[in-house]
Amino acid sequence: MPSLVDLLSSARVYDLGQPYFTGMPHHPSHPPFLYSLIKEHGEYVGPAGGCSASDSIAMGSHVGTHIDALCHFSCGGKLHGGDDVAGLQSYGGGVGRHSIDTVAPILRRGVLLDIAGTAALDALPEDFEIAPAHLEAAERAAGVEIRAGDVVLLRTGWGSYFREPRKFISQVHGPGPRLAGAEWLSARGIFAAGSDTVAFERVPDPAMPVHVHLLVERGIHIMECLNLEELAKTAAREFLFVALPLKLQGATGSPIRPIAVA
Amino acid sequence: MPSLVDLLSSARVYDLGQPYFTGMPHHPSHPPFLYSLIKEHGEYVGPAGGCSASDSIAMGSHVGTHIDALCHFSCGGKLHGGDDVAGLQSYGGGVGRHSIDTVAPILRRGVLLDIAGTAALDALPEDFEIAPAHLEAAERAAGVEIRAGDVVLLRTGWGSYFREPRKFISQVHGPGPRLAGAEWLSARGIFAAGSDTVAFERVPDPAMPVHVHLLVERGIHIMECLNLEELAKTAAREFLFVALPLKLQGATGSPIRPIAVA
Amino acid sequence: MPSLVDLLSSARVYDLGQPYFTGMPHHPSHPPFLYSLIKEHGEYVGPAGGCSASDSIAMGSHVGTHIDALCHFSCGGKLHGGDDVAGLQSYGGGVGRHSIDTVAPILRRGVLLDIAGTAALDALPEDFEIAPAHLEAAERAAGVEIRAGDVVLLRTGWGSYFREPRKFISQVHGPGPRLAGAEWLSARGIFAAGSDTVAFERVPDPAMPVHVHLLVERGIHIMECLNLEELAKTAAREFLFVALPLKLQGATGSPIRPIAVA
Amino acid sequence: MPSLVDLLSSARVYDLGQPYFTGMPHHPSHPPFLYSLIKEHGEYVGPAGGCSASDSIAMGSHVGTHIDALCHFSCGGKLHGGDDVAGLQSYGGGVGRHSIDTVAPILRRGVLLDIAGTAALDALPEDFEIAPAHLEAAERAAGVEIRAGDVVLLRTGWGSYFREPRKFISQVHGPGPRLAGAEWLSARGIFAAGSDTVAFERVPDPAMPVHVHLLVERGIHIMECLNLEELAKTAAREFLFVALPLKLQGATGSPIRPIAVA
Repeated sequence: MPSLVDLLSSARVYDLGQPYFTGMPHHPSHPPFLYSLIKEHGEYVGPAGGCSASDSIAMGSHVGTHIDALCHFSCGGKLHGGDDVAGLQSYGGGVGRHSIDTVAPILRRGVLLDIAGTAALDALPEDFEIAPAHLEAAERAAGVEIRAGDVVLLRTGWGSYFREPRKFISQVHGPGPRLAGAEWLSARGIFAAGSDTVAFERVPDPAMPVHVHLLVERGIHIMECLNLEELAKTAAREFLFVALPLKLQGATGSPIRPIAVA
Repeated sequence: MPSLVDLLSSARVYDLGQPYFTGMPHHPSHPPFLYSLIKEHGEYVGPAGGCSASDSIAMGSHVGTHIDALCHFSCGGKLHGGDDVAGLQSYGGGVGRHSIDTVAPILRRGVLLDIAGTAALDALPEDFEIAPAHLEAAERAAGVEIRAGDVVLLRTGWGSYFREPRKFISQVHGPGPRLAGAEWLSARGIFAAGSDTVAFERVPDPAMPVHVHLLVERGIHIMECLNLEELAKTAAREFLFVALPLKLQGATGSPIRPIAVA
Repeated sequence: MPSLVDLLSSARVYDLGQPYFTGMPHHPSHPPFLYSLIKEHGEYVGPAGGCSASDSIAMGSHVGTHIDALCHFSCGGKLHGGDDVAGLQSYGGGVGRHSIDTVAPILRRGVLLDIAGTAALDALPEDFEIAPAHLEAAERAAGVEIRAGDVVLLRTGWGSYFREPRKFISQVHGPGPRLAGAEWLSARGIFAAGSDTVAFERVPDPAMPVHVHLLVERGIHIMECLNLEELAKTAAREFLFVALPLKLQGATGSPIRPIAVA
Repeated sequence: MPSLVDLLSSARVYDLGQPYFTGMPHHPSHPPFLYSLIKEHGEYVGPAGGCSASDSIAMGSHVGTHIDALCHFSCGGKLHGGDDVAGLQSYGGGVGRHSIDTVAPILRRGVLLDIAGTAALDALPEDFEIAPAHLEAAERAAGVEIRAGDVVLLRTGWGSYFREPRKFISQVHGPGPRLAGAEWLSARGIFAAGSDTVAFERVPDPAMPVHVHLLVERGIHIMECLNLEELAKTAAREFLFVALPLKLQGATGSPIRPIAVA
């Protein structure tokens, strides 16, 4: 174990999380991020001159860099695994199966497929469908092979738009895979898939087939709003991926700050 | 790097985070955790039968398992490093120095000092002061030596009270170090200190000397409401400690789900 | 003035507000209502046995019974009155013109147009357009004449669905006026229009012409999610209408609990 | 009834509510007010050029101008009326007796007792106890007689500090009645008492005897953070008082925007 610490001390850590701030982009069907100090330094000064400031936040669980629990979607009234969702959900308690607090800390092999880079684009256009051919080209370019249990991250280049909320959300038009791309990924038995866009899906598509396929049919987690810009500039295409979802009881997702260690 | 993934596959991961749920314990000066589904499965059914549920949360940034940014406290109008806090804070924007979004992902050597276990107690009584002698005894019992840069976790046994909010908060009476204990820790040059209590401090103490000493004077982070019960039952007293604070811009703290890898 | 108090003591007050509760209906583009106690009775007992409980809420400003500020909508980049909205809005500060805190307490003549009752229906079907002919029939049935400055309330009967969130929201299909109905109302110079539905508009209609016409073009406030059931069962069709919007600085709307005094 | 509308058209309405804004004063044991736009004008433009902005808020139910439900306090484990609070409260559902949603719209005779004005002070000092003699002097100066069912408002002058949060909260030191003053009020059988301070009580006093006496023992509501400045400058000392608490199910209080009509 000390060796783990030693190993890490010579490793490089890439931060894949976007910041949270008032006015940050959020998908219109999820509550935005709210922030305020609740107490400023100097409001209550202790007997020895010490004092504290603290703050409060409010947000949807799918806002900013986050991970979807498998219970985020259902199909035909069934959750992943086949349970009827009826009777398994309540406003106050959330969803009773496959909620985010049931997800163990994630430490897995990660692979970056730089779709934009492979296409020699800074960023994919908003109507770009990431098809199996693009995934294969990026895998080839990366010189790695996706394996069962991996976390696969698709870079579209949209992470660089994050400080421009309107461009990033783009009225929820954006590049991503359709069903064929999702099936290419699920055929490899991966644990989770992620992207730097607000939706891991070519949107708009009211049927949300990628979410249904990955979450409900195949039990594969989805991560969105990753920041893959810094990582893509390096040669690292395989790495240790770490994400630690908050144990929000019954919740359909959680904010995360994932990292790549290479 | 693949070796890191390989090494981890044979390692054991201990979850040090407590769950978040409506009614969970919270220090009375911090806003509580609120949760609600905002959409149930079945409310909006897509064209192919797919549908989603999602949720919203609200909370203080020092509620549940969390880490304090150095800017959480000041003393005599100065932040850690000596900057005047005046002019560096606003309700909407938080604190302009040493906020939690400036903290890099934490992957460091961790050490568990089981104060309760060393004292042969299930849990320390609420008026127990963790003095230097207790820290030394626990370090000796652990058979490890604290080093500069470490994350040091003190177990009081109160983590097992977390599902009993009144007992856990205990009108904010609880065991912890006073200044002497904090100085023992800071003298070792540690990066962060944590405990399984609501306050890393023998409380009540309106001057909060431990917070002032560690955060302001010495630049040492504090983590609270950890769950150290499972880890303490093992022999692991040194381990890889990982925590990934959310990049809440300007914030004085962040919820986290830390892990120990041993 | 004493006479006002005296007059009121013999008047009857009708409560037009719906309750707020976790799981209550909310339009999907607005954050839901969250509620939690933050402290239970008994957690902190004072020296003489007294103790308090308190709570916290989070919500969109257009959730439940509420009123729209004129700045809720714009058209072609212009707010009501013609100001460019560009430069007049920020996430933290809201909208700088016609926000809800600029609206004086509302004490005005109110008129109930019972569209459902006039059509001899318990509730209008979800695709029902309230056309000028329906407004005229209801006005005739009420035996009143709408005057400039009035508050006009349209009853569809949907207020009785409020405890059934899915039925009430109905995937945001619902009865209401289209532009012709809105113009019939605005031609009378009214101050505000309201209904017992989630949207004062025949929805879905992505152009939201009724909102644009009333709020932006004519400066007429809109109120939604009223409970008109009890009032409709009486003979009162004209009354004193009172609503007191919270002075939420910069906000585009406010929850209210309006009353009719007859 | 038309006469009510007519009467009101010649009456003057005084706004007794303070604004809500990020950074506004809040008692440290209650969650602060948070605000953010969730969508700006221009983010989603409809087919005819119309678009909307909307917002979200989060707050404690005792923040800003608000009214206490009788269930806000208990004593010896009993609520007003004698019910055991045990078994009558839950985090998600609030308190099951005397919650704010059970309070009818308030339209009652109001009386202003200008304690500061009677003492020829702009504002009472922070350690000022409002004793029965002060109440009597102010009643005499007002030339009115308090009657059963009235709403009695005490002006300390602190309403003018509201834009200076630290001065207004003052580390929760502030003027107000102690038990003797509260008993003077309750002996008159009033419906509610209010003030322009953060606590209707001479604070600090950990026993909170005024809250216990009025809310629990006598069933008299308390209102805090009123703005009485404009009203006090007029000659109106008796008036129609109107407040319309939101029907927050199970809640211990509600924000309000009260008015005086004179």
